[in-house]
Amino acid sequence: MSAEQKPMFAKVALIGIGLIGSSMAHAMRRAGLASHIAGYSRRAETLEQARRIGFADSLHELVTECVADADLVVLATPVGSFAALAKEMAPALKQGAIVSDVGSVKTAVLRDVGPHVPKGVHFIPAHPIAGTEQSGPKAGFAELFDNRWCILTPPLGTDEAALERLKEFWRRLGSNVETMDVKHHDLVLAITSHVPHLIAYNIVGTADDLQTVTQSEVIKFSAAGFRDFTRIAASDPTMWRDVFLNNREAVLEVLGRFTEDLSALQRAIRWGDGEALFDLFTRTRAIRRGIIDAGQDTAAPDFGRGAEKKTQ
Amino acid sequence: MSAEQKPMFAKVALIGIGLIGSSMAHAMRRAGLASHIAGYSRRAETLEQARRIGFADSLHELVTECVADADLVVLATPVGSFAALAKEMAPALKQGAIVSDVGSVKTAVLRDVGPHVPKGVHFIPAHPIAGTEQSGPKAGFAELFDNRWCILTPPLGTDEAALERLKEFWRRLGSNVETMDVKHHDLVLAITSHVPHLIAYNIVGTADDLQTVTQSEVIKFSAAGFRDFTRIAASDPTMWRDVFLNNREAVLEVLGRFTEDLSALQRAIRWGDGEALFDLFTRTRAIRRGIIDAGQDTAAPDFGRGAEKKTQ
Repeated sequence: MSAEQKPMFAKVALIGIGLIGSSMAHAMRRAGLASHIAGYSRRAETLEQARRIGFADSLHELVTECVADADLVVLATPVGSFAALAKEMAPALKQGAIVSDVGSVKTAVLRDVGPHVPKGVHFIPAHPIAGTEQSGPKAGFAELFDNRWCILTPPLGTDEAALERLKEFWRRLGSNVETMDVKHHDLVLAITSHVPHLIAYNIVGTADDLQTVTQSEVIKFSAAGFRDFTRIAASDPTMWRDVFLNNREAVLEVLGRFTEDLSALQRAIRWGDGEALFDLFTRTRAIRRGIIDAGQDTAAPDFGRGAEKKTQ
Repeated sequence: MSAEQKPMFAKVALIGIGLIGSSMAHAMRRAGLASHIAGYSRRAETLEQARRIGFADSLHELVTECVADADLVVLATPVGSFAALAKEMAPALKQGAIVSDVGSVKTAVLRDVGPHVPKGVHFIPAHPIAGTEQSGPKAGFAELFDNRWCILTPPLGTDEAALERLKEFWRRLGSNVETMDVKHHDLVLAITSHVPHLIAYNIVGTADDLQTVTQSEVIKFSAAGFRDFTRIAASDPTMWRDVFLNNREAVLEVLGRFTEDLSALQRAIRWGDGEALFDLFTRTRAIRRGIIDAGQDTAAPDFGRGAEKKTQ
C-alpha cells in the first residue's frame, strides 16, 4: 500500500470537495491511488480554498470538464444535487469509467443517478461510514476512512471487475468494505445514523425553545450529557436535509419504533417502575461493549474530555 | 491553591467512593483540602479497590464510623439510597459539620435528607456537573471537576459562613460555583442531562430490538452517529434509575416538549418540507458554538475520533 505502487486510476474526478471529497483526495495521495485528482465545486470560494490547500491536481467549475477522461467519478455533494449533476455530466463520461458516490442514502441515489448513466459506464453507489461534525474542504484529512466501513450497493448485473476495482480502491483508502442491498442499507443507516441525528437536532431545538431555562444555562451545564448531542446537531444542514428527504420511508419506520419505545419509558417514569428502567439501562451497556470490541470507539472516558486531556 | 495552604477541613467523609467520590478524593489531595479523607461503601469489593488505589486515609463499612468527627460529609451514592443513609448517620454527626451531596436531582434530596439532619448541622445540597460514562472507584481522577460547574441549592435560612465554605471547597476542587433554587435546578438538569440520557438509552434499546438489522450491523456502522449515544447509554444504571424516579415531574415536562417537537419533525419528513428541516438544522449550530466559546467543549472534530488520533 505504498506510494510506489502503480496508481489504480489515471484520473479520478471528485464532484464535490467538502469534508468527504477532500478527505478522499488526501487519502488517495497518501496511498498513491491516482495520477491526477480533479475537483469540482459550484462555489468559487470552495475552489479557492481547495487551491490553497492543494489536495487536487486540477479544479473545475464545470462538471463536464472535471469528469472528462476520468476513470473514476465520485459524487460527493449533498444527495439532493445528484440528479442534476448526473444529467449534466453524462455526455462527458468516458466509456469504461466507474461512476460512484458517497451519499448517505442509496435507494434515492439509484433512482436519481441510475437513469443518466450511459451504456458502457459502470455505476456502483458507495457509502463510507465516516465523518465529523465539520464541513468544507478545510475539514478533510487523510485518516478519516481508516478502519471505518464502506458499504457498496452494486445494482443487479454490475460488472464484477469494476466492482472489485472499487472495493480495492476503498480498501486502499483505509476502509473495510461490505456490499449490501440498497433497501437494507437505508434501513441500517436509518437506525445507526439518520434517526440519531434527527433526535440530536430535535433535543437541541427543544432546549433552545425552553423559556424558563436560559440559553446560557443550557450552555454552562451542557457537560452533563447534552454537549454530545450538540456536537451531532452541528453537522452540515444541507446534507442532512437531503438525507431526510431522501430516506423518508426507513426514517419514519425507525422513528415510529423509537417513539413507541419512548412512550413506554415515559410511562415507566410516570408510574415509578424502577425495574423497567434498570433493565433497559443495563441492556444498553452490552452494545457499547460491542462497539469498543469492534474497534469503532475507545473505552477512554469522554464526557469529562476537557478535563481528561489535562490528566496526561 | 497549593498543597501548602492549611487544609480547609480536618476530616471529610465521603459516603460513596465511586466515580464522583473517588474523583473528589483525588482532587482534595491535589489541593490539600483535608487532613483526613474517610471513605464509606457498603460493598467489600469497592472498599478493597479503594484501599489498593489509596485515595482515602481510612475506609469504613459502617457509615456512622465514617462520619464520626467529620467536618464535611458528602453523600455520593445513588440518590435512592440517601434517605436511609441520612437516617443512619444522623446520630453520629458532629455539631457544626456540613452535610452535602453530589446527587443529580435536588428536590428529592431536600425531601429525603433534610428531615434527618440534626439541629446544629448545616445541610447544603450540591451537584457537580461532571462525570464520565464509567463508574466505580477505579474510574476517578483529580481533574474531573476542572472548569466544570458545581450547583449549590442552599435551603432557605442556610448559614452564610457554611455556604461560603462549601463554595470555596468546590472552587478549590477546580469548579466554578453557582447557586440555584432546587426546582429550577431540576428543570435545567432535565433538559441538559436527564432527558438526553433517556433518549440515548431509548435509541440504543430500539436498535437492539430491530429484528431486520443485526446487532453486528449496528456495531459495525455505529461511527455514523449512533456511537455517541451508546457512550451516554453506558452510564451507571442504578444511578440513572434513581435520577428518573426522583425527577419525575421535570423529566416528564421536558419529555413532553421533546415529543411534540419530534412529531413536527416527523411530519416535515413525511410531507417533504425541506425548509423546516433546514431551518432547525441551522439553528442548532449556534448552541454548539456557544458551548465551545464557553469552554465546555473543544472544536476539534470528534466523530472520526478513532482516525483523528492517528493524525498527530
